[in-house]
Amino acid sequence: MNFSFNLPVNLLFGFGAIGEIGKKSAMYGKKAMIVTGRGSAKKSGLLAKAELHLEQSGVDSVVFDNVDPNPLTTSIYEGKALAEAEKCDMVIGLGGGSIMDAAKAIAFAAKNEGDLTDYIFARKPLGDALPIILAPTTCGTGSEGNGFAVLTDPLTGDKKSLRSNSIIAKLSIVDPELMKTMPKRVLSSVGFDALCHCMEAYLSSLGQPLSDLIALEGIKLIHESLADLCGGFGGDEEWEKLTLASTFGGMSIGLAGVTAAHGIEHPASGLRNVVHGAGLAALTPTVFERSISHAPVKFAEISRRLGGRDERDCVEGIRSLLDAIDLSIGLKEQGIRESDIDWMAENCFKVSAASLANHPVKFSIDEIKDLYRMSL
Amino acid sequence: MNFSFNLPVNLLFGFGAIGEIGKKSAMYGKKAMIVTGRGSAKKSGLLAKAELHLEQSGVDSVVFDNVDPNPLTTSIYEGKALAEAEKCDMVIGLGGGSIMDAAKAIAFAAKNEGDLTDYIFARKPLGDALPIILAPTTCGTGSEGNGFAVLTDPLTGDKKSLRSNSIIAKLSIVDPELMKTMPKRVLSSVGFDALCHCMEAYLSSLGQPLSDLIALEGIKLIHESLADLCGGFGGDEEWEKLTLASTFGGMSIGLAGVTAAHGIEHPASGLRNVVHGAGLAALTPTVFERSISHAPVKFAEISRRLGGRDERDCVEGIRSLLDAIDLSIGLKEQGIRESDIDWMAENCFKVSAASLANHPVKFSIDEIKDLYRMSL
Repeated sequence: MNFSFNLPVNLLFGFGAIGEIGKKSAMYGKKAMIVTGRGSAKKSGLLAKAELHLEQSGVDSVVFDNVDPNPLTTSIYEGKALAEAEKCDMVIGLGGGSIMDAAKAIAFAAKNEGDLTDYIFARKPLGDALPIILAPTTCGTGSEGNGFAVLTDPLTGDKKSLRSNSIIAKLSIVDPELMKTMPKRVLSSVGFDALCHCMEAYLSSLGQPLSDLIALEGIKLIHESLADLCGGFGGDEEWEKLTLASTFGGMSIGLAGVTAAHGIEHPASGLRNVVHGAGLAALTPTVFERSISHAPVKFAEISRRLGGRDERDCVEGIRSLLDAIDLSIGLKEQGIRESDIDWMAENCFKVSAASLANHPVKFSIDEIKDLYRMSL
Repeated sequence: MNFSFNLPVNLLFGFGAIGEIGKKSAMYGKKAMIVTGRGSAKKSGLLAKAELHLEQSGVDSVVFDNVDPNPLTTSIYEGKALAEAEKCDMVIGLGGGSIMDAAKAIAFAAKNEGDLTDYIFARKPLGDALPIILAPTTCGTGSEGNGFAVLTDPLTGDKKSLRSNSIIAKLSIVDPELMKTMPKRVLSSVGFDALCHCMEAYLSSLGQPLSDLIALEGIKLIHESLADLCGGFGGDEEWEKLTLASTFGGMSIGLAGVTAAHGIEHPASGLRNVVHGAGLAALTPTVFERSISHAPVKFAEISRRLGGRDERDCVEGIRSLLDAIDLSIGLKEQGIRESDIDWMAENCFKVSAASLANHPVKFSIDEIKDLYRMSL
């Protein structure tokens, strides 16, 4: 057993934690760019509340909200230009996964010139970033718990992570209260994404004792909360569990990476703007069915955290959960066509080579085409 | 559930990891002070090996070895003077807990003028430190996994931690191979110290989900390895488990602090230079007996990791382990006299107020005197 562990995250977790955003941000400068969505954080009053907290702590702020789901590298350059024009000292991400990833990428772009794709594909050495503060409003991505920012290049359709410890947030304010405004459709898909992070990190060949502990606990917490919350039951304790599991998912992939389900999903959401969690819902059961015999002990551990017996009822457990959260869905319903399969399968080996390599089975390109076909 | 999590440790774990010490140290400068003991690292050839690795990576080194068990603040000033005279860029700690704590404290003193006691008792704000690299040769203290350095002031006998994220090692090289040279007497006491770290962090009112996970896993790993290794059985897998558990213990107290057993032991080793793990062996069963009814669920979880059933056989499990590792010992055999009890009980409230406050029971001074008396 040889491993390294270095995940310098800084979490402030709990109901009401968002109230600290002003005081904590003031430690990093006088001017913040707030990256947020065009919708929910404004409607819910969260943005106004954050702006007020910042102002009361002597921090000026400017808002950047031109970020799409599956954020594009081009919108990052736009954010960088604004951060420079406004002389921002820090970047605050207030929103879901796309928003947090955009905030991280803007903070990075502000200190690293040129095409982000060169950094993503490791053609240029990774530099520093502006200080980043994150406050998630969805519990799926776990971006608050790692140094990844998933970006899509609109020219190529490549969806791939920028990965650097320099884009680990200086502070992540993880407040379960902020999750309560999610529509049910969003909740089910982000919650399933969080589950996939935990399961895939645990399956990864890069797994190590600390990522294993965190990932398995995350699976258990999701089993104890997600279906209840999607069904409209569950109270503060369940919101805490799901929110924590999401951060745990982000931390566990920060340590161990993702594996084949994420690797095979990225080309789909890169190409057709599929909702990431829904894409995973279509692909994960199929990918796992073809993988169990290669890592039965690990699948048994996962299954038990999902209320199952051993590796043989692991996929059944996942399918029951998908039914319970109303997310049993194929790729076709999400806009993927049979004719996309060849491009997606080839793209997998371009953008997801590392994730495929971490998986317990090494799938060939033909097997990946099969997996897409069976998930339509 | 409200908590914060920030433990920016950087671990390189595994057999052979020590071979990286030169290459990794070179990232932090050209001149290193190696803090090490007067005995084992020299005899075993480890010091010579580390010096060679450093030299091959272009790092000059100077050795400081005037450190006692339960290191004194005065020896830290001596180390600081040498580090300054030799213009060292970093401090490398190569040894057990006392050595690592001394290395951390020297790195801190090199950047913070005046009396260390002022920083320990929070009368002065904590500053930066020279980069620290640690390589433990005992598996007990867990100092490689946190920002604590326990020091003793020879004028007052106060034994208390300097605590700052600035003295978290930039890199901890945790190589189970280095543990194999420990004499059995040392192994049993450091291993029991590691167990206490995990148990106490789990019992602490500052505990949180991540410290709980790490601490409970540490208890399980020690149960699976310590008695075998002390008995002369057990191979590389057991050494890995015990070594990892020790780092986990350090991490878990870094997050959640220690509780009453450590709090009550420190005055004993501050006063009479008791071996810390042996002092804990005398005190822990008694302290736990008086605590179980205040946190039965937690003691049951601990007990189960030790092979027990529930909270009722927790102390029995600990006593069996102490028998198995030949560490069933009272305080009297360790030089503590009945007449020391009043001073020790009073000193508890001076140096261990925080640890006592984290404990599930708030002991009065008379109860603490009783605990000492029953542990003689």
